[in-house]
Amino acid sequence: MTQILISEVGPRDGLQSIKPIMPLEAKKRWIAAEAAAGVKEIEVGSFVPAALLPQMADTAELVKFAKTIDGLNVVTLIPNAKGMHFAAKAGVDGASIPFSMSETHSVKNVRKDHPAMLEEIRAAAAIAKDHGIHFAVGLSTAFGCTMEGAVVEDQVVRLAEKAAEAGAQEFSLSDTTGYADPAQVRRLTRKVRAAVGTDMLTTLHLHNTRGLGLANVVAGLEEGITTFDASLGGLGGCPFAPGASGNLVTEDLVLMLNSMGLKTGIDLEKLLSVRAILAEALPDEPLYGFTPDAGPMLDYSARVAA
Amino acid sequence: MTQILISEVGPRDGLQSIKPIMPLEAKKRWIAAEAAAGVKEIEVGSFVPAALLPQMADTAELVKFAKTIDGLNVVTLIPNAKGMHFAAKAGVDGASIPFSMSETHSVKNVRKDHPAMLEEIRAAAAIAKDHGIHFAVGLSTAFGCTMEGAVVEDQVVRLAEKAAEAGAQEFSLSDTTGYADPAQVRRLTRKVRAAVGTDMLTTLHLHNTRGLGLANVVAGLEEGITTFDASLGGLGGCPFAPGASGNLVTEDLVLMLNSMGLKTGIDLEKLLSVRAILAEALPDEPLYGFTPDAGPMLDYSARVAA
Repeated sequence: MTQILISEVGPRDGLQSIKPIMPLEAKKRWIAAEAAAGVKEIEVGSFVPAALLPQMADTAELVKFAKTIDGLNVVTLIPNAKGMHFAAKAGVDGASIPFSMSETHSVKNVRKDHPAMLEEIRAAAAIAKDHGIHFAVGLSTAFGCTMEGAVVEDQVVRLAEKAAEAGAQEFSLSDTTGYADPAQVRRLTRKVRAAVGTDMLTTLHLHNTRGLGLANVVAGLEEGITTFDASLGGLGGCPFAPGASGNLVTEDLVLMLNSMGLKTGIDLEKLLSVRAILAEALPDEPLYGFTPDAGPMLDYSARVAA
Repeated sequence: MTQILISEVGPRDGLQSIKPIMPLEAKKRWIAAEAAAGVKEIEVGSFVPAALLPQMADTAELVKFAKTIDGLNVVTLIPNAKGMHFAAKAGVDGASIPFSMSETHSVKNVRKDHPAMLEEIRAAAAIAKDHGIHFAVGLSTAFGCTMEGAVVEDQVVRLAEKAAEAGAQEFSLSDTTGYADPAQVRRLTRKVRAAVGTDMLTTLHLHNTRGLGLANVVAGLEEGITTFDASLGGLGGCPFAPGASGNLVTEDLVLMLNSMGLKTGIDLEKLLSVRAILAEALPDEPLYGFTPDAGPMLDYSARVAA
């Protein structure tokens, strides 16, 4: 019985592309309710300057709150080493830095080319090590870029190797732009693992821009991927990658994995009820997903692993 | 380079659940345009009594028209042996009969229990043989039923064996209700093939009710399935199965398979332009799909097999 970790990234990746600020108290209710539904890891925010992303200004407070929830792995995004300082101060369990495989996207997004990003990774890794923070590097735009188009796979491998040397403890392959197809997921997972080691790559961050999100999950499962990022209601996407939209919908992902008999530890009914918190706090934001409309199959509970 | 056949079922499965009658001339334009985009098989209609489904009243005329298109495999649905008479008279290349694995659904849908359906299959097979018509049996509700819930897998295997004895030349596993998950697709494909032979099961008919359609395609590809039914714009579903809706969207399926480097022979740009025919003829019907909104990836053409 394979155990799968679903990492809820809605409070970060979902909210960061949304204008209306979700009140701190609503964010707390969201995080608490998902944890109560069985979600074991939540990316609660991002340590970016509040002036740049006011939506993320309360990240330190959210970390503090989330750390009071038993058994929850509390992670945040950091754009650079400075962000890692804030993350350490707030007391996160883990932090990840997005490292765009497309240099054009990297420069446009965080104004750093690849050598400059590798320096940030090295500096962030050192801080993480000092504070016992698990440090992941997200290989973003790994499947293609809305500015550059194709991203050469050997370049992804080479940059992953360099990031590992710089102190990355773990990688995720990140389909920032919704470009991934299932064959590519299998191929790139194998290539990167061959270079940095299987244990260093167990996470996929997928988007559903072209409806291929869950198809890519299946490809990842075939390769033995065990962690998937997803966002409740499919909220959000990357605000800096034009045309990029729609995280994997947590509800549909949980339905699929649970129905397959894989162990997520998440109660689907409870998870579906968390949508009400989003709907109330962000009344103008569309929420996505098929499962909320169709409901689980009649025999759903018989399919779920004990 | 694997060749994949996409069987367009929109003119049958898509339209049969829709009230407004699509004019014959629009249906012809639709069929001709899809064939021109490279679609090699189209289910053009169903030989059911016109009183029951007025939308399908022009099926014989559509067969006649579609048969004038070079290289197109023209197939129809038939509910029973009587339908096979009409199909033979019209000159179809192939015909398939839905055989509901859920006896409750079968009785409700066509007022026949399993033994009565096996008699229909035997009679239809004999007519098909006389006329050189390729005869397929669709194992519908194979992944679960909105009335019965779980459908026992050994029952699907046993009924497939009986249908093979009765003269089925081929099977498709049909997820009428949108219940299938990827693990189930792999398991049931193997079980049925073990009983009736690999060559007898090369087709999946999937729905996207819970957003798992393309994920189930990936599972099917892993098992060596080479034919997938889909409906342009995701039109339709089974009108007799409550809650069943949404065929696999042809556009998204083609994007995924082409992007994976599999050969469908279908030009995505041309296929997308066919939607205009549906939008014009059925202005009140919602059309689905992610690819029409997002467009192909920037590097799409480099991914496609030569």
